[in-house]
Amino acid sequence: MSTEINLSDTELRQIDAYWRACNYLAAGMIYLRDNPLLREPLKPEHIKRRLLGHWGSSPGLSFAYVHLNRLINKYDQSVLFIAGPGHGAPGVLAPVYLEGTYSEIYPNKGEDEEGMRQFFKEFSFPGGIGSHCTPETPGSIHEGGELGYSISHAFGAAYDNPDLLVAAVVGDGEAETAALATSWHSNKFLNPARDGAVLPILHLNGYKINNPTLLSRISHQELEDLFKGYGWTPYFVEGDDPLTMHRKMAETLETCLLEIRKIQQAARAGSEVVRPRWPMIVLRSPKGWTGPKFVDNRKVEGFWRAHQVPMAEVREKPAHLAQLDEWLRSYRPEELFDANGSLIPELKALAPKGPRRMSATPHANGGVLRRALRMPDFRDYAAALPGPGKSVAENTRPLGLFLRDIMAENMRNFRVFGPDENSSNKLDAIYGASKKTWLADYLPEDADGGELATDGRVMEMLSEHTLEGWLEGYLLTGRHGFFSTYEAFVHVIDSMFNQHAKWLAMMKAVSWRAPVSSLNLLITSTVWRQDHNGFTHQDPGFLDVVVNKSPEITRIYLPPDVNCLLSVANHCLQSTNYINVIVCDKQKHLQYLDMDAAIKHCTKGIGIWEWASNDNGSEPDAVLASAGDIPTKEALAAVVLLREHFPDLKIRFVNVVDLYKLTPAAEHPHGLSDKDFDSLFTVDKPVIFNFHGYPWLIHRLTYRRTNHKNLHVRGYKEKGSINTPLELAIQNEIDRFSLAIDVIDRIPALRVAGAHVKEKLRDRQIECRNYAYENGVDLPEADNWLWP
Amino acid sequence: MSTEINLSDTELRQIDAYWRACNYLAAGMIYLRDNPLLREPLKPEHIKRRLLGHWGSSPGLSFAYVHLNRLINKYDQSVLFIAGPGHGAPGVLAPVYLEGTYSEIYPNKGEDEEGMRQFFKEFSFPGGIGSHCTPETPGSIHEGGELGYSISHAFGAAYDNPDLLVAAVVGDGEAETAALATSWHSNKFLNPARDGAVLPILHLNGYKINNPTLLSRISHQELEDLFKGYGWTPYFVEGDDPLTMHRKMAETLETCLLEIRKIQQAARAGSEVVRPRWPMIVLRSPKGWTGPKFVDNRKVEGFWRAHQVPMAEVREKPAHLAQLDEWLRSYRPEELFDANGSLIPELKALAPKGPRRMSATPHANGGVLRRALRMPDFRDYAAALPGPGKSVAENTRPLGLFLRDIMAENMRNFRVFGPDENSSNKLDAIYGASKKTWLADYLPEDADGGELATDGRVMEMLSEHTLEGWLEGYLLTGRHGFFSTYEAFVHVIDSMFNQHAKWLAMMKAVSWRAPVSSLNLLITSTVWRQDHNGFTHQDPGFLDVVVNKSPEITRIYLPPDVNCLLSVANHCLQSTNYINVIVCDKQKHLQYLDMDAAIKHCTKGIGIWEWASNDNGSEPDAVLASAGDIPTKEALAAVVLLREHFPDLKIRFVNVVDLYKLTPAAEHPHGLSDKDFDSLFTVDKPVIFNFHGYPWLIHRLTYRRTNHKNLHVRGYKEKGSINTPLELAIQNEIDRFSLAIDVIDRIPALRVAGAHVKEKLRDRQIECRNYAYENGVDLPEADNWLWP
Repeated sequence: MSTEINLSDTELRQIDAYWRACNYLAAGMIYLRDNPLLREPLKPEHIKRRLLGHWGSSPGLSFAYVHLNRLINKYDQSVLFIAGPGHGAPGVLAPVYLEGTYSEIYPNKGEDEEGMRQFFKEFSFPGGIGSHCTPETPGSIHEGGELGYSISHAFGAAYDNPDLLVAAVVGDGEAETAALATSWHSNKFLNPARDGAVLPILHLNGYKINNPTLLSRISHQELEDLFKGYGWTPYFVEGDDPLTMHRKMAETLETCLLEIRKIQQAARAGSEVVRPRWPMIVLRSPKGWTGPKFVDNRKVEGFWRAHQVPMAEVREKPAHLAQLDEWLRSYRPEELFDANGSLIPELKALAPKGPRRMSATPHANGGVLRRALRMPDFRDYAAALPGPGKSVAENTRPLGLFLRDIMAENMRNFRVFGPDENSSNKLDAIYGASKKTWLADYLPEDADGGELATDGRVMEMLSEHTLEGWLEGYLLTGRHGFFSTYEAFVHVIDSMFNQHAKWLAMMKAVSWRAPVSSLNLLITSTVWRQDHNGFTHQDPGFLDVVVNKSPEITRIYLPPDVNCLLSVANHCLQSTNYINVIVCDKQKHLQYLDMDAAIKHCTKGIGIWEWASNDNGSEPDAVLASAGDIPTKEALAAVVLLREHFPDLKIRFVNVVDLYKLTPAAEHPHGLSDKDFDSLFTVDKPVIFNFHGYPWLIHRLTYRRTNHKNLHVRGYKEKGSINTPLELAIQNEIDRFSLAIDVIDRIPALRVAGAHVKEKLRDRQIECRNYAYENGVDLPEADNWLWP
Repeated sequence: MSTEINLSDTELRQIDAYWRACNYLAAGMIYLRDNPLLREPLKPEHIKRRLLGHWGSSPGLSFAYVHLNRLINKYDQSVLFIAGPGHGAPGVLAPVYLEGTYSEIYPNKGEDEEGMRQFFKEFSFPGGIGSHCTPETPGSIHEGGELGYSISHAFGAAYDNPDLLVAAVVGDGEAETAALATSWHSNKFLNPARDGAVLPILHLNGYKINNPTLLSRISHQELEDLFKGYGWTPYFVEGDDPLTMHRKMAETLETCLLEIRKIQQAARAGSEVVRPRWPMIVLRSPKGWTGPKFVDNRKVEGFWRAHQVPMAEVREKPAHLAQLDEWLRSYRPEELFDANGSLIPELKALAPKGPRRMSATPHANGGVLRRALRMPDFRDYAAALPGPGKSVAENTRPLGLFLRDIMAENMRNFRVFGPDENSSNKLDAIYGASKKTWLADYLPEDADGGELATDGRVMEMLSEHTLEGWLEGYLLTGRHGFFSTYEAFVHVIDSMFNQHAKWLAMMKAVSWRAPVSSLNLLITSTVWRQDHNGFTHQDPGFLDVVVNKSPEITRIYLPPDVNCLLSVANHCLQSTNYINVIVCDKQKHLQYLDMDAAIKHCTKGIGIWEWASNDNGSEPDAVLASAGDIPTKEALAAVVLLREHFPDLKIRFVNVVDLYKLTPAAEHPHGLSDKDFDSLFTVDKPVIFNFHGYPWLIHRLTYRRTNHKNLHVRGYKEKGSINTPLELAIQNEIDRFSLAIDVIDRIPALRVAGAHVKEKLRDRQIECRNYAYENGVDLPEADNWLWP
């Protein structure tokens, strides 16, 4: 470590005073509803009736924050702060308040005694703010309510932000989570010439709720080996004496920043970019540092008992009240705040100014930095069709070309993400504009189709968690992205989806936050073409998770063909504040709509396909509806079977692209009015709905509709193994034969005439299945089926 | 490394021949449907029409397998094999077939030419077997369809199996996943005196589908540091020359086993148990090892092109056919198999015998080893009640006592799992029987309530993934377990749940597999008491994931109080082959049923609470139904409000414990008949259903019921922040006032008389909310509400 870096005694004293102010505020938030400056002795009525909040990691978070402030001032460095530890908000809100941002945004929490009283009272209080770094927290892009995403969020923020340093405090509880454990490898995906830097500060606080943490209970050697093995250079700041720790932290942070700048300068000087060993800090400090050492004779500071509220029953127990009074006064608030209740000018001067304040950096309110994507015309990628249902194509290939050209026009604020699957998912055209980011080692054979580059913009790692985290961080700092993944394994990030949806829902309600780009998720390699991968790869249930989240945030599209996919993707890529889920398989599928028809269909989101219907505007005998590629093909084939046998039967064919069209208008902004719904699905005719996912989802969306009693949904019913596509469809009864039989069964007039037809259909179904069992492939005429 | 270990030339030649036989079979499975022994030159008609399967990791898997065989024979060691790499089945099925187990179980796949033909044909073929180590695979407890769980499954299998060595081959693609990355830390939770050992073999195959793997592209030093940092001693076996590699692998495996035995002997000699540095192996070998080096002049062996089928269009391209013929013959099948098509006796002798064969170990068919739990009488833990709804208790505390005593009676085959939350979830009584397993470092303060012990049986790590993986491994090897976790964060393991449910569903269809203990999952710290933790902690949507899985496997219970929870848990802990999901909050809640009533209620799963109803067996005016603790309390309070204002109104109160009772009988074995359903819910009266989760789930289960049109469900609607319990209920309209208004609105006779009452109810609702906003707590009378 450099020995030239030295904290002057004045700086030391000031930094410690500023940190004391933070700790005072953090404790005050947890306990006080009145008497915020202890102008009078503490009384029970000053104490909140419900004591909520987490003291444990707060002092450590503030410690990192105030030292980063020093660095920002000294080097005019742009820094984004990420607080990984759960419930760490007091340790972040305190410095945020002290540097004035909080009062600027929330004027009722001014920098005076009354403002402080409000600030304390509203913490973890109904109608107030949470104990995580929620969207209401200025400077936050990372709530930390669920653990494990701090490092991947930090990297996402750093990409394409060459001047930014993202300081990510990682909780040692959080560090045990799966998502966090693999995200340390993100350093193989960051280019020092083009991207900013991430400085992880692993906070070895020592304890979780009731347990020690793993990383605090292995040897120093193992800890050092671990992070070296992950590719970092760890620096250790360990101890409990505040003044010694201030010196160490100041020196270490500065050493790290200088090292980072050296790495960046070398990379940016034009020499070959190689993966550096970035510095990181291990900060080992007592849990609940500076808080009560013992309460009722039991160890608190430096132990798990300091995790939440370190002393309970303060209103009830005079001894606790006295101890709280003593503890709070140990920070000497009278030295820190003036008569007005404002931080004294000497300390106020320590905070960075304006947008250099971490709480005011525009990167944490990414919408203000967001520039709309430059978009090529998606119509240029259209598939030319000989007619509806008369040709096949891989649905995702043209999207790959479209994404390639979007990439080429947006080489600083757009990235494409996928877990080793962009080629597998037929999006590999993207590499024509930019290759895969790769800063690990290269071998000669990589030149032969490896598509790797240190300056690539396609992000591939076999961790859905890390990809999702990177993408979230990238979007929340004002950029754009597109994520494609296997349908069955998108469940791996169910919980991250939930948390991002919650963040967006809250964010929309925060007036000062500008809209960010939507998270666009292409779910491909879908259930109906996982016939060869088997049962483990068959799960279309992510949509059931999605529909539980706020209708203000979630959008679901099932484009049936190339042109619909292009139209939907074009829309999604330009939208903000949504999570757009697009379900579309990568294999060869029938093509239905030319581009004009596709645009019209996708804009409506749902509609009658007249070319496949023969009700000619009159009331049909039955409605066949579909959502999804294979279900649409099978439903159309059923129409043909029915026409063959019952040419007078009037069938209406409805296709759904925008799934929320099915929902009542009152429940989702896309929902059809009952009148429009009824005009499509009739009020009393049988409707057979062939759905991509689990069939119950359609019932869940439509149970209030007039004709729901006549709605019969087919979908994946958890039946599958190694199959052919048609045979998998047959097992789950979404195949043409089952559907045609379904229609016959629902039309009273066909009950007699239909019996013979049903028998023929069942025979044919069995023939198809037997052919698959014998040959391992579908009958050519089933596999190559076209609309006649 | 010990130099005394030496492979004789004969052994070397034999092992290589056995491995060649494996590789021949693996390639044969992918390509051949006929001519399995190449008795005639390959012709297009011998080739499968659809080429499926993954060659890439197969040779490496077989390599590990045959060397483990040698170890088993030499040391009479019991070994369970876990194949982590996805789609690795050919490399496992091959040795499984060669050692005869496959033919014993599936007589049509005999050890002769016709058997081999069938064995080849049925691989990855409709009606055949999958390309993962599915439940049909003898010796497998780990399918590997979804990646990331090999190490945690391996540890689960090793716990309490002191004589077992679990050899877990970890794919280097898999090693990038989040779940795998943190599971290396499992070594801090394994006791060498009591548990078996896990020997990870990290297979640095070099590539995923289209990309290099991270761990194969960092320096040797980083790789070594990483695993040392994780607490292992890595041994490296690297190269591509088979004979050299055989020598290295044999020596290294033997070194590792001797080291493991030394560790175990020391620990079992009675000295203090400390965490050893267990050995592990890094096996670096070319992807698609021994396969075609180039195809069409592009590199295949040792590159990602070897991942799946290394040569396509074999039927179509004569050059490919010739190359395949040459490749297959390179294994010299004529030297390996006799005229009959059986492995020659010299090689056959290399396989272990009987249950020592890894494919025949009873540990992989855990049901055969399973012993029923010794159970104390759950009635002994009953809460005594002054009457229904007249007292409160923490629902999970008595369960903790029950679990403690189960633990005490089953100290070798029962474990309790939870992510740092058994205390938080009020199950800490468990530590009275056994503490938390902890083999990381200790500090003096741990003595003060740390509850840590090297021989603890309570498994706590802040990784839901690792816990779930351990538990699955533990159950599949014939033991019992109980997992409790926070409701919102159980979504972290959605995908693991899905995969385990799929495993169980398939397993039930495999005749030779014996039933294993159910996976019991207590979901606690639920949405309605996450008022103080805020929006991120509020998510009851796991149930929506659960209901998509097979009705043969899934069970959902929402016991409303202590005695119901005890009764449900008692049932679940003795069941097999299910995933039992129990939703019950840890906080203080009203108590409703004495033990006799609870048993009766839980056995029925759904029922009328007569003490809360006043329809006296006649047709009610309305039905109020509930599922879940807080929703039940609020629904009961609504009953009281309604009675106060409309004493003549006949209200029936129905409570649901077993959620699947709502489903039609045809769709779930627990489903009520329509007749029984109608007799509870009437055919035409308004039903207000107050539900624990997202309200749509109830519609999804009941949409076919007669009275569905009159069913109005209230539940969590994704509205929440920092609230009080009542205020959170009000936001989502599951509170007493909203429910009472709901009933009034549905009863025509009350429309006029009810207007005034509704106004009063709304006023009271506002008062309650304002009180919460002002005081941060609920009104005492709301908080302490009892049934009158």
